[in-house]
Amino acid sequence: MERIPILRMGKFLLITIQVDMHDTTALALQDDLMAKIARSGARGVLIDISALDVVDSYIGRMIADISMMSKLLHARTVLVGMRPAVAITLVELGLSLRGVKTALDVEKGMELLAAALEDGDAADQD
Amino acid sequence: MERIPILRMGKFLLITIQVDMHDTTALALQDDLMAKIARSGARGVLIDISALDVVDSYIGRMIADISMMSKLLHARTVLVGMRPAVAITLVELGLSLRGVKTALDVEKGMELLAAALEDGDAADQD
Repeated sequence: MERIPILRMGKFLLITIQVDMHDTTALALQDDLMAKIARSGARGVLIDISALDVVDSYIGRMIADISMMSKLLHARTVLVGMRPAVAITLVELGLSLRGVKTALDVEKGMELLAAALEDGDAADQD
Repeated sequence: MERIPILRMGKFLLITIQVDMHDTTALALQDDLMAKIARSGARGVLIDISALDVVDSYIGRMIADISMMSKLLHARTVLVGMRPAVAITLVELGLSLRGVKTALDVEKGMELLAAALEDGDAADQD
């Protein structure tokens, strides 16, 4: 079975999705990611989909699920690298990825996460 | 044809290899990477192979080639995430990846690149 690698970069975790996700790969990714968040105390997750030509409803739901699960473990998720054509198709399919934050590329996603963390930490102190 | 995404992170580029590389994928990766180094002026390349169970002589040579090509464009390459079993097999196969720097994970690879850049820049000024 293929496993998608999860890379640690400072306080964040990075996942690049390059292959079509099937049931087992997607479930394994969720398991691996949650275990890694719990173990590392990571506060943010970046999911890069720049390699994907197509994002169907299955992958869309998987990403939304990961975002919600991560939130329960106190980590924020940002989806990065979406191709323009994918954005068009998603909306045409009626999938709006509600609740999932996006950024154009990994660098901008990291900035977004860092800013969100600062805001969040400030709010926590209130 | 599958294309392997190249992610920009500050001064460095990150590639995660998740699939078996064939001729066309490997050549496309080399082309894409050299174009991206030239365009971005990146000074370092991280190649993550933590998803690979097997590294054969073809992938080994491809990585060594990328390392040499990047060097010609003034960028250093670090191979990260190699599994212990892969290291054992590589040596048993007689492949020592000569000239390729390695690090245990992406974070350590970034530190290595950053340190190498500082040394290099200091040497450039001499």
